Amino acid sequence: MSANFSHNPYKLAGPARVEINDVAPRDGLQIEPVVVPTHGKVAFVNALSHCGFARIEATSFTSAKAIPALADAEAVMHQIERVPGVRYTVLVPNLRGLERALSCHPDEVNLVMSTSETHNRANLRMTREQSRAQLLAMIAEAGRAGVPVNVSLSTVFGCPFEGEVSVEDVMGFAQTFADAGAAGITLCDTTGMAYPNQVAALCEDFQKRLPDTGLTIHLHNTRGMGLANAMAAWQTGVTRFDAAAGGLGGCPYAPGASGNVSTEELVHMFASMGVETGVDLGALLDVVASLPALVERDISSQLLRAGPRLRTHQPPAWMAEHFQGQ
Amino acid sequence: MSANFSHNPYKLAGPARVEINDVAPRDGLQIEPVVVPTHGKVAFVNALSHCGFARIEATSFTSAKAIPALADAEAVMHQIERVPGVRYTVLVPNLRGLERALSCHPDEVNLVMSTSETHNRANLRMTREQSRAQLLAMIAEAGRAGVPVNVSLSTVFGCPFEGEVSVEDVMGFAQTFADAGAAGITLCDTTGMAYPNQVAALCEDFQKRLPDTGLTIHLHNTRGMGLANAMAAWQTGVTRFDAAAGGLGGCPYAPGASGNVSTEELVHMFASMGVETGVDLGALLDVVASLPALVERDISSQLLRAGPRLRTHQPPAWMAEHFQGQ
Repeated sequence: MSANFSHNPYKLAGPARVEINDVAPRDGLQIEPVVVPTHGKVAFVNALSHCGFARIEATSFTSAKAIPALADAEAVMHQIERVPGVRYTVLVPNLRGLERALSCHPDEVNLVMSTSETHNRANLRMTREQSRAQLLAMIAEAGRAGVPVNVSLSTVFGCPFEGEVSVEDVMGFAQTFADAGAAGITLCDTTGMAYPNQVAALCEDFQKRLPDTGLTIHLHNTRGMGLANAMAAWQTGVTRFDAAAGGLGGCPYAPGASGNVSTEELVHMFASMGVETGVDLGALLDVVASLPALVERDISSQLLRAGPRLRTHQPPAWMAEHFQGQ
Repeated sequence: MSANFSHNPYKLAGPARVEINDVAPRDGLQIEPVVVPTHGKVAFVNALSHCGFARIEATSFTSAKAIPALADAEAVMHQIERVPGVRYTVLVPNLRGLERALSCHPDEVNLVMSTSETHNRANLRMTREQSRAQLLAMIAEAGRAGVPVNVSLSTVFGCPFEGEVSVEDVMGFAQTFADAGAAGITLCDTTGMAYPNQVAALCEDFQKRLPDTGLTIHLHNTRGMGLANAMAAWQTGVTRFDAAAGGLGGCPYAPGASGNVSTEELVHMFASMGVETGVDLGALLDVVASLPALVERDISSQLLRAGPRLRTHQPPAWMAEHFQGQ
């Protein structure tokens, strides 16, 4: 049965500990049809803070015109509890946003651009070259303020407008921003086009070329491969994962695209495998159970429906009599 | 960032070709609330036959009382087109079912029992010992008829009543049936309790102990890990996968359990990775699109909604004007 399997590469292993960044307050709430009130956002971030996450992406300092749902970014940052041990990061798309963000003292700022020209124009209304120049200025500005910078590179595993995205483009932008002083880079599968050996190859390449730059993987579950891609990244040594509670999120430019990899399914998988995440799954599932009230729609969290793998059930009642004496 | 990753096991590789057995006509239709008429079942099997599957599990020779939805097993087997290159297999739970099955000349019979005592009693109304004895008699009987036997072992990665299932129990049953002449064994994650390093460990163990017995993996996506588990199995050299078109199926004893790994997502993942399945994804997606009419309910196929990964979209209309001259 293994006739085509002449080599023997098998060893399913990876890091003993990973860090999870819950991006639902930003990446999830920005696309929900309902605008969650500030107190609801604050309660959501606070609840996540007590689950044990390494990082939480709390909000986005975007223009209120572009993303009205997150127009209250300052209020959210001022009102949330800053739980020790959690790093609070915020998304920042431009210099104006950076000024606003820095006034709120985040632990990190997360800059963003797309590695696909068309997606960058559609999403940020700038050419890649304009974004690149602006990000370099922002990295310098954040550096002067003493705030660490992460850069999220979108569509690195494929673009919903252009199709395949060149690895050299991706690694070129990563190298540029790492050289400029970004402490971390996130490789984002914005619309769920990544597949496992592609993820493994790019993650391996990245870690070889930029061994001192923190690498985070941001995956979507659009085509069911979210956790398979997470496994592929983990097997190459990746220790940082973005995910969204309840699998919130999506992409307005990819019709039918489902959301981010769900945090609870990622935590549950790693916990089952004996990989430490620091996250309390029970506490997280309570947060997920509260999401339908927060976003005023049904959240189809498979894990919430089914429960953790060792949740057992009562056998059918007829069995006791049927097998009496056996 | 890779401080806990002192070894370097990375190599994401596996067999260049895999075989997929679509079990939806049996494992899916048996649990649907609607009874699909015989002509609908026949059309479904015929449509799958023209997608390029290696195997199709066409029906089940169970008592009409136990599973009324598949009471027309003989009619289905007599009316389907037998497309050359496709092996038509049928599920058979007992000796009476085997007689009925053999009269229809399947290419293979698939026997079934659970490796968990409680699940076997709940699902088959027999003790494991009664099932074991009956399966041995059935293997002998099928052997006399010259029909190859596969044995599907349920709940090998966990039982919804008992929790963990012992690897020694699983391998003991596998060894027993292989010794008795079963050509293949399917390890079934009946309620989606499997996780990747568990799947890899059991598959590796199986292939070491029973190198001449065809190993198939049957996965459910209950907790989102379906494709991650498929990757884990593939990385150990597994080449045979069960899956159900549209992700049909489930388990009546595990409330909230979603269905089988969806065939289209499995085929799409392998195709993306350059692994041959022999299945025409476009033809398969047409079949999946026809499922809601067949089973009279919505089928939430993520891949059908999103399309294959390289399906591209038009950029927003405002872009042309906005970037004019750039």
